[in-house]
Amino acid sequence: MGWAAKDATGHLSPYTYSLRNTGPEDVYIKVISCGICHTDIHQIKNDLGMSRYPMVGSDVTKFKVGDVVGVGAIVGSCRNCHPCKSDIEQYCNKKIWSYNDVYTDGKPTQGGFAESMVVDQKFVVKIPDGMSPEQAAPLLCAGLTVYSPLKHFGLNKSGLRGGILGLGGVGHMGVKIAKAMGHHVTVISSSDKKREEALEHLGADEYLPYLSLLKLDGKLILMGVINAPLQFLTPMVMIGRKSITGSFIGSMKETEEMLEFCKEKGLTSMIEVIKMDYINTAFERLEKNDVRYRFVVDVAGSKLSP
Amino acid sequence: MGWAAKDATGHLSPYTYSLRNTGPEDVYIKVISCGICHTDIHQIKNDLGMSRYPMVGSDVTKFKVGDVVGVGAIVGSCRNCHPCKSDIEQYCNKKIWSYNDVYTDGKPTQGGFAESMVVDQKFVVKIPDGMSPEQAAPLLCAGLTVYSPLKHFGLNKSGLRGGILGLGGVGHMGVKIAKAMGHHVTVISSSDKKREEALEHLGADEYLPYLSLLKLDGKLILMGVINAPLQFLTPMVMIGRKSITGSFIGSMKETEEMLEFCKEKGLTSMIEVIKMDYINTAFERLEKNDVRYRFVVDVAGSKLSP
Repeated sequence: MGWAAKDATGHLSPYTYSLRNTGPEDVYIKVISCGICHTDIHQIKNDLGMSRYPMVGSDVTKFKVGDVVGVGAIVGSCRNCHPCKSDIEQYCNKKIWSYNDVYTDGKPTQGGFAESMVVDQKFVVKIPDGMSPEQAAPLLCAGLTVYSPLKHFGLNKSGLRGGILGLGGVGHMGVKIAKAMGHHVTVISSSDKKREEALEHLGADEYLPYLSLLKLDGKLILMGVINAPLQFLTPMVMIGRKSITGSFIGSMKETEEMLEFCKEKGLTSMIEVIKMDYINTAFERLEKNDVRYRFVVDVAGSKLSP
Repeated sequence: MGWAAKDATGHLSPYTYSLRNTGPEDVYIKVISCGICHTDIHQIKNDLGMSRYPMVGSDVTKFKVGDVVGVGAIVGSCRNCHPCKSDIEQYCNKKIWSYNDVYTDGKPTQGGFAESMVVDQKFVVKIPDGMSPEQAAPLLCAGLTVYSPLKHFGLNKSGLRGGILGLGGVGHMGVKIAKAMGHHVTVISSSDKKREEALEHLGADEYLPYLSLLKLDGKLILMGVINAPLQFLTPMVMIGRKSITGSFIGSMKETEEMLEFCKEKGLTSMIEVIKMDYINTAFERLEKNDVRYRFVVDVAGSKLSP
């Protein structure tokens, strides 16, 4: 039993489906907690024009019998291409999403708004001892999304000055992880509403009302889907040899590293835990930026059946 | 005596002015050849809104008594900032352009459409023996503009696959220099007119009617001013961790390296040499892309006075 969006209204309701039989490399997972991401809204409302209904959402689960495990946004990849062989399977052209995708058996992937999941062991990670499932849930997507580019672009050495544009689920983990790496962090936002939180609760050093300042060789790293095209004039990047680049979640290897990093540094995500029957209200509030900073569904503690 | 644009019609005509007295580090230069760049059109027609009239153009000259020397697009910088101290003075915020700028003495910089120039020795390079002044002229701007990013971004090792978008003064040197570095080069253009030239005369390997294909970690490097903003959707860079970056001409150190590289590899620019009284026709033809690939003014062989 899970919850699914059945059309582009994006309204979720109970939905019954069959999991595949576990293969030799598959893990049967009982879902405890599942995070909610703004990408879920793009998907359930068909903003990207590629939604398949009925559709369900993604995240946290169980590894070997009794282990607490996690599943992120990806549950499959080809294993043979250059990205797969380089342990950056998130860039595989045949990657399979945790939901709103089709698995190798031809059946839809169903995500984590459900009692249970079956996931190949390659795409399952152990949650470190002492980290609660509801804390881990946002790290597996938002935490990874900021950790991966900081590491890849060599920005994990301390002492840099960086900005976080937008303070949401990903942004708030960006502030925490970048601070834990020893950087000077400025939150950049178009609104003043989150100023106090950025400075007092997350440990940011500065807050600017809206500014895009990069010095020589500076990088603007995009991590989220924006519906409208971004625009720029060529001299803005040429003079200063700046880069606009992007990064797409992260690899399973980076997921393990990131969870260890968060455990070691004592980093937690700021979450609001809800029950499954609150899910549609949660999506409404998320669209209005009315959450600090991630909803996590207490799946195990919810009544999923109607 | 030089030639200058006197208003935003962009029409050039003879103009008399005084050079500064040579200071201890200055070089008095008799102009032999001066290249014409599309940037000159942006400047003389005030496309960038920062033109000061009367205005004159930039490029090639003479070093010590009897030496054949070159001057590029920049004739001054602060000498104290991070870029200046890192030998990338083209990124100095106080850089001084060869023309349409103000020198440290408060007087306009006058460029190379003139009998002579006075330029600080830091911004003067020796033209290698055996390289003709009219050949060197386009290298000091177009050649440098492509050489600098290929080197900076680590793309000067052989065996890469790259594209050149647009086959003009800069693009044609891009094909030649990238081929000389041992790469597979594809010319990408919106028109078919230059197909034969790209393949047969410049040595490109492929030609596509219009395509923007970057693989994982690929880079789009912008080198020219485009009047309209460029647009893109964030997933286009995120999925594939691609970069849009830019580069601005190059340093004096890179100018010397590039000239040596072109000499060693026997690279020449494809030019059409004109006299000064043809300059306004040349600008008209340049705006229609009717030049293969750079006009160079034979300044020494022209009658500059009316």
